[in-house]
Amino acid sequence: MTDFFKDIPEIVYEGTDSSNEFAFRHYDPDAQVMGKRLEDQLRFSVAYWHSFAWPGGDPFGGQTFDRPWFGDTMDHAKMKADVAFEMFRILGVPFFCFHDADVRPEGDSFAENTARLQEMTDYFAQKMETSKTKLLWGTANMFTHRRYMAGAATNPDPDVFAFAAATVKTCLDATHQLGGQNYVLWGGREGYETLLNTDLKKEREHAGRFLTMVVDYAKKIGFEGAILVEPKPQEPSKHQYDYDVGTVYSFLKDFGLENEVKMNIEQGHAILAGHSFEHELALAASLGILGSIDMNRNDYQSGWDTDQFPVSVPEVAVAYYEVLKAGGFTTGGTNFDAKIRRQSLDPEDLILAHVGGMDVCAAGLKAAAAMLEDGGLERMRDERYAGWDTSDLLGMDLAAIAEKVEREGINPEPRSGRQERLENWVNRFV
Amino acid sequence: MTDFFKDIPEIVYEGTDSSNEFAFRHYDPDAQVMGKRLEDQLRFSVAYWHSFAWPGGDPFGGQTFDRPWFGDTMDHAKMKADVAFEMFRILGVPFFCFHDADVRPEGDSFAENTARLQEMTDYFAQKMETSKTKLLWGTANMFTHRRYMAGAATNPDPDVFAFAAATVKTCLDATHQLGGQNYVLWGGREGYETLLNTDLKKEREHAGRFLTMVVDYAKKIGFEGAILVEPKPQEPSKHQYDYDVGTVYSFLKDFGLENEVKMNIEQGHAILAGHSFEHELALAASLGILGSIDMNRNDYQSGWDTDQFPVSVPEVAVAYYEVLKAGGFTTGGTNFDAKIRRQSLDPEDLILAHVGGMDVCAAGLKAAAAMLEDGGLERMRDERYAGWDTSDLLGMDLAAIAEKVEREGINPEPRSGRQERLENWVNRFV
Amino acid sequence: MTDFFKDIPEIVYEGTDSSNEFAFRHYDPDAQVMGKRLEDQLRFSVAYWHSFAWPGGDPFGGQTFDRPWFGDTMDHAKMKADVAFEMFRILGVPFFCFHDADVRPEGDSFAENTARLQEMTDYFAQKMETSKTKLLWGTANMFTHRRYMAGAATNPDPDVFAFAAATVKTCLDATHQLGGQNYVLWGGREGYETLLNTDLKKEREHAGRFLTMVVDYAKKIGFEGAILVEPKPQEPSKHQYDYDVGTVYSFLKDFGLENEVKMNIEQGHAILAGHSFEHELALAASLGILGSIDMNRNDYQSGWDTDQFPVSVPEVAVAYYEVLKAGGFTTGGTNFDAKIRRQSLDPEDLILAHVGGMDVCAAGLKAAAAMLEDGGLERMRDERYAGWDTSDLLGMDLAAIAEKVEREGINPEPRSGRQERLENWVNRFV
Amino acid sequence: MTDFFKDIPEIVYEGTDSSNEFAFRHYDPDAQVMGKRLEDQLRFSVAYWHSFAWPGGDPFGGQTFDRPWFGDTMDHAKMKADVAFEMFRILGVPFFCFHDADVRPEGDSFAENTARLQEMTDYFAQKMETSKTKLLWGTANMFTHRRYMAGAATNPDPDVFAFAAATVKTCLDATHQLGGQNYVLWGGREGYETLLNTDLKKEREHAGRFLTMVVDYAKKIGFEGAILVEPKPQEPSKHQYDYDVGTVYSFLKDFGLENEVKMNIEQGHAILAGHSFEHELALAASLGILGSIDMNRNDYQSGWDTDQFPVSVPEVAVAYYEVLKAGGFTTGGTNFDAKIRRQSLDPEDLILAHVGGMDVCAAGLKAAAAMLEDGGLERMRDERYAGWDTSDLLGMDLAAIAEKVEREGINPEPRSGRQERLENWVNRFV
Ligand SMILES: [Co+2]
Ligand SMILES: [Co+2]
Ligand SMILES: [Co+2]
Ligand SMILES: [Co+2]
Ligand SMILES: [Co+2]
Ligand SMILES: [Co+2]
Ligand SMILES: [Co+2]
Ligand SMILES: [Co+2]
Repeated sequence: MTDFFKDIPEIVYEGTDSSNEFAFRHYDPDAQVMGKRLEDQLRFSVAYWHSFAWPGGDPFGGQTFDRPWFGDTMDHAKMKADVAFEMFRILGVPFFCFHDADVRPEGDSFAENTARLQEMTDYFAQKMETSKTKLLWGTANMFTHRRYMAGAATNPDPDVFAFAAATVKTCLDATHQLGGQNYVLWGGREGYETLLNTDLKKEREHAGRFLTMVVDYAKKIGFEGAILVEPKPQEPSKHQYDYDVGTVYSFLKDFGLENEVKMNIEQGHAILAGHSFEHELALAASLGILGSIDMNRNDYQSGWDTDQFPVSVPEVAVAYYEVLKAGGFTTGGTNFDAKIRRQSLDPEDLILAHVGGMDVCAAGLKAAAAMLEDGGLERMRDERYAGWDTSDLLGMDLAAIAEKVEREGINPEPRSGRQERLENWVNRFV
Repeated sequence: MTDFFKDIPEIVYEGTDSSNEFAFRHYDPDAQVMGKRLEDQLRFSVAYWHSFAWPGGDPFGGQTFDRPWFGDTMDHAKMKADVAFEMFRILGVPFFCFHDADVRPEGDSFAENTARLQEMTDYFAQKMETSKTKLLWGTANMFTHRRYMAGAATNPDPDVFAFAAATVKTCLDATHQLGGQNYVLWGGREGYETLLNTDLKKEREHAGRFLTMVVDYAKKIGFEGAILVEPKPQEPSKHQYDYDVGTVYSFLKDFGLENEVKMNIEQGHAILAGHSFEHELALAASLGILGSIDMNRNDYQSGWDTDQFPVSVPEVAVAYYEVLKAGGFTTGGTNFDAKIRRQSLDPEDLILAHVGGMDVCAAGLKAAAAMLEDGGLERMRDERYAGWDTSDLLGMDLAAIAEKVEREGINPEPRSGRQERLENWVNRFV
Repeated sequence: MTDFFKDIPEIVYEGTDSSNEFAFRHYDPDAQVMGKRLEDQLRFSVAYWHSFAWPGGDPFGGQTFDRPWFGDTMDHAKMKADVAFEMFRILGVPFFCFHDADVRPEGDSFAENTARLQEMTDYFAQKMETSKTKLLWGTANMFTHRRYMAGAATNPDPDVFAFAAATVKTCLDATHQLGGQNYVLWGGREGYETLLNTDLKKEREHAGRFLTMVVDYAKKIGFEGAILVEPKPQEPSKHQYDYDVGTVYSFLKDFGLENEVKMNIEQGHAILAGHSFEHELALAASLGILGSIDMNRNDYQSGWDTDQFPVSVPEVAVAYYEVLKAGGFTTGGTNFDAKIRRQSLDPEDLILAHVGGMDVCAAGLKAAAAMLEDGGLERMRDERYAGWDTSDLLGMDLAAIAEKVEREGINPEPRSGRQERLENWVNRFV
Repeated sequence: MTDFFKDIPEIVYEGTDSSNEFAFRHYDPDAQVMGKRLEDQLRFSVAYWHSFAWPGGDPFGGQTFDRPWFGDTMDHAKMKADVAFEMFRILGVPFFCFHDADVRPEGDSFAENTARLQEMTDYFAQKMETSKTKLLWGTANMFTHRRYMAGAATNPDPDVFAFAAATVKTCLDATHQLGGQNYVLWGGREGYETLLNTDLKKEREHAGRFLTMVVDYAKKIGFEGAILVEPKPQEPSKHQYDYDVGTVYSFLKDFGLENEVKMNIEQGHAILAGHSFEHELALAASLGILGSIDMNRNDYQSGWDTDQFPVSVPEVAVAYYEVLKAGGFTTGGTNFDAKIRRQSLDPEDLILAHVGGMDVCAAGLKAAAAMLEDGGLERMRDERYAGWDTSDLLGMDLAAIAEKVEREGINPEPRSGRQERLENWVNRFV
């Protein structure tokens, strides 16, 4: 036991009357919601990187956090793991996620990186024997190191492609060893800074080949989790290939991967792409590629990825509505790819940020379930499209339809879209 | 002859030393550029709607323009056509474009609309016998009338779908009769105001069926032009299905239309979607679906579609670079889907806006051609990717690559992306 | 009595257990909140223009609403007033607001406009004798008519300045006659489309002179209400002089009006300017110029003014927190400068939109009051700044401070900003 | 002499026919423009921080640049200075700018920081004896160190205020010793992350007191340069008090500093605030507070500060038009607060970025001068406002104007704003 979180108790559910900051007001893991325990619906996950590896820097300032595990030795890495699992225990979260670079110091070579990752994987495996916290997903950090500055899979230099591919292999191996339920690819450097030096067509083909290799290798080693791509329109790159769900889907279709790969959708990235979170979720669900979510919001007044913990129950509720309507999570879950603000220096801040985020999600998901169980929204929607149930239009051609419109004098009157009424309806539940 | 443009002469090329406002300084239609006359490279087109049908309103104000042809009779419609063809003659443009609703008054029924469109099509056909100006594309306005407020192809009411389909048939017929080189679909109402009342999956399927019918009907009547979709992310709808090139491509792939349909890409719409114009062009070219362009810019400080005439030669040059690199226009062209500001009240403003836009495009395309003929950019790009020419990576699997990286100790050093150097290079030409 | 809202009953408070769409769930006008009736805290107001004068058009589509009072006769105007007061009665709102152009048909001259406005003012006065609904504010529409296309007070043509000034006189007279509690100026055309034709310095001076005249005239006629300016950064103009609260304050200071004029702050305009609503409120409060609010939101994904009814209790709560902390409304109130979506065709939609908005505001204000009464936030804030209570720094000069820092070895350690903790605290109340 | 730029020659003017990358095509320092040498009009300045202190990191990646002077000893600091002055010589720039933190390693105390800054100031003074390059401005970095994470002048902790004030004293002393022509304050941390923990009124007062102290101390030591504030709306903070020119002006007015302090305006910051660069320049000029410029652009598709070198002559030309119209620079100049992209690894990239930026500015300023000398724009503008020259309106009150409008039947017709015509006119020069 480290003493980082020394006086902080395990967080338990106390209900909305509680004014205890270190308790859940909405998140009762054992509550039944739509036929499952709430814990099994939400499937919360802590992100290793923001909470344990990020020093608090931003483009105009350096480290703000003082953490005893900051340093580049394996001992530091293990102390970090110890603290992480203590936080998992305090929060009672069922899952966590990590990149290779979060958990091991950077080595001087691929071989050294691999050895260190293996050592940490074994260390995690040992800790997980006595922890309830499982691995939601693993991933490879292919954006921090300078070798990736011009892309990993889409780098103009095939040696970088090779280094990246080799690295993904090791991360998939680690994820598999730890029983990870998904493997995620986020391509922060898979894009460009300027079109002037970029062969967009070639880079897209290399990305397609790369993803195909990942899918094949996962099958080869018997990894049964989902392979997920996380869309983001820009930042760090000026423009990224995995812009949004629609764009990634076009890529999957081109490379025949639409049945092999699903989406990990982040609220903040949806916002940066000009969409709402619920749009991206609904689109992915309609395309059959909804996998998992990163439940961290962007500040609406900031033009970059702020990765904040969720605070708005109404916003979260409409997101979970799409998730539950699509059947709920299978391998996926609710990952907090969220960081405390760089001014939130205290160990307590780290705990309270998660407590607050978990409570907001719990309240949101319960509201979403209530809306679905009521069924009012779905009834109103079905009614709006009811004309199609008996229409024969989709079997006709343009000329036949034109002939019919003229003959029957079809001249439709518009009907109210009832938006405000529907918004009021939603507000009964959130 | 109307006397609307009474004292305005035909615009001729006078060169950059001219200070005559009513002359071209860069656009010499007969100049040879990359093996074609400049007129045949640029293929300029005037948009009927903005210049002749738009009254100057905006969300906070009404009509500002006083035009003798404003009114809802067929005589008004013909006077409008007369003035339009006079402007085409003054500008010497080889093309124009129109929606049905631009050229005929709205009727009380589909049949009346059709008859009026037919009468105006005949009137155009007659005028085109003595005009050099051809039809670049026709299209159906399925966004202004209240029947379309909740969508045309994607309307919850099948009767609206039918009315829209019938209308497209008549517009395709008119386009075909007039020898139009393309037919365009822009879906300003094919989207939603709120997800709460929207069945995204169903609407997408209806849109797919609709587009398939259009493609089939074009074939059936022997229309040999291109079918083009014009992406736009939002406005008028909160969210539109044809968000951007990548999203439309995913749609085409899903409905097997990627070899049947191309893109009409507008600068302003690219900006609204968070892209640069050249990005959308380069992406479409790399996917083989670059068709035509709408060369009208958005104000970078405004969050809506301002549809302004182009003014920046450097911006236009990098766009034409992508067009020329992709082989130049075949059926497509440079359409000014641009409107003069609502304060630009005088007939002269209408002419000068086009003169300025044509000159900017001419200067831009010549700069683009010079860049391509120099070849410096392509050489620098090829050099950057040269490692792939001899690489065997794409044939290997992850495990083999990992083994190779470890065995060979691959540890790549990044190389400069040279962005500023390339930007300087471009500035030699623009 | 018209029969427009025929079957719709007066809306009464039924509490959160009610599932009656035509009832308030949170708005109990007689509930006591911070020493006042809730009705007297919120001071709801209906905006005449959006609900009764707007036909449903947008930049890409025309009229969607069919209203029996649409037309340009005085009879139409009176029918419109009748329907409006019926809606006020149904909703039980204590206030409304109007522009001259909302309530009377446009005349052919200033004299005719004045006469018509007078006739309608008398008509309103008569209706108000039997209505509980008072006038929150009046204003002049100086943006719709084409004469104002290049500005009203800031028009390059002094005749337009004169027409605008004369018009404001008549609107102030009408507001005064009706006992209006405020008079508002929003300058949608007081800005520019292009700097190229704009004399920014001259236009700013004319605006200053204009506002001074308004203040003087209000005093002269004994109008005791507040004069309010409503900031908005852009739209309809590319750039407007009343960009945001900070910018308007600089203008007031320059013309010595900072004690004469206050702000009417709209949520949507705050968002368009890159601020949060609560920022603009807090800034205005700190400058002593917080007057009234327009409680209508913008869609975060749309780059233009969508003027939607509020739906988010958490958002509304932090706004009312600033209002209540500043002492609550005096002459100001909560105006819904909000329009139903153009697809919301039915009379019921108009009522339900207001019911929903009022309920959201009621819930939000009650949450804000609870936060203030708890006092936790203020205590935590005071504690954060407590060091200043005993500091002598503000009386020293740079050299003395430098000497002190060196002598005392001052080397401050940062303290946690506790953002997530504070956000959690807020979530206990909303 | 270091050998960092070993084979790179001094850059000389060769004219537009040159294809030498290491030559100026537009910047001939000795060319006469509007009565001054071009060098004396443009007054170019290199920013020490981006070119010599920034390691190439971004929010998702670490150091990319390998520089022999990276390190935290005074020897490293002096090697950095040596390389910097070599670059100044190669480019022939007349000015540079620096923060304290750019030029000396961070010490453990205020005293150590001061001593190190003094040592480097002396080192600079010595180098400047044999260099043509002077100091345009100095400034204090009060945003990178963690002590400033919650603000410098606006920090809740008075000790941080004191540390900041003491630091500014030392930086003003250094600037004065080196003959700096301006002193700049940019408040990247003077703002907030969340209103919840912020006392906006108190922070604003402390900022006012701080700025007053700076002005007083500058006078006390006989510093005759200008005190400049650099506005920026956000980043790193969510919201910064020095949002834009209008907002800063309101602050200056409140604290009686409008005649003591001027603006340092950056293109990228103007864009982030929703303005054009030329707007901010024109506004500052009209308020008499235009001081100096940071000539680095933002990418229009990125929502954060990209600080790129200028590439667009048309954009730069309209900016210099405002500068020249206001009389040109006095103490101010053209500072490149610009950084090469993090992928631009080579010494050559650093030189070429500046060469390109200087050439773009030279071409732009020459175009601006030609426009001013032609006078066409000013004539058209004067004509547009000519009615005011003989108007007596500004001396009348509302009632008198209304009486006059009614009596004279004033009913103004709008006149064309001629935007496209003016844009075409500009395009003759750029
Ligand atoms: Co993110
Ligand atoms: Co994420
Ligand atoms: Co457009
Ligand atoms: Co278009
Ligand atoms: Co608004
Ligand atoms: Co408003
Ligand atoms: Co900047
Ligand atoms: Co700057």
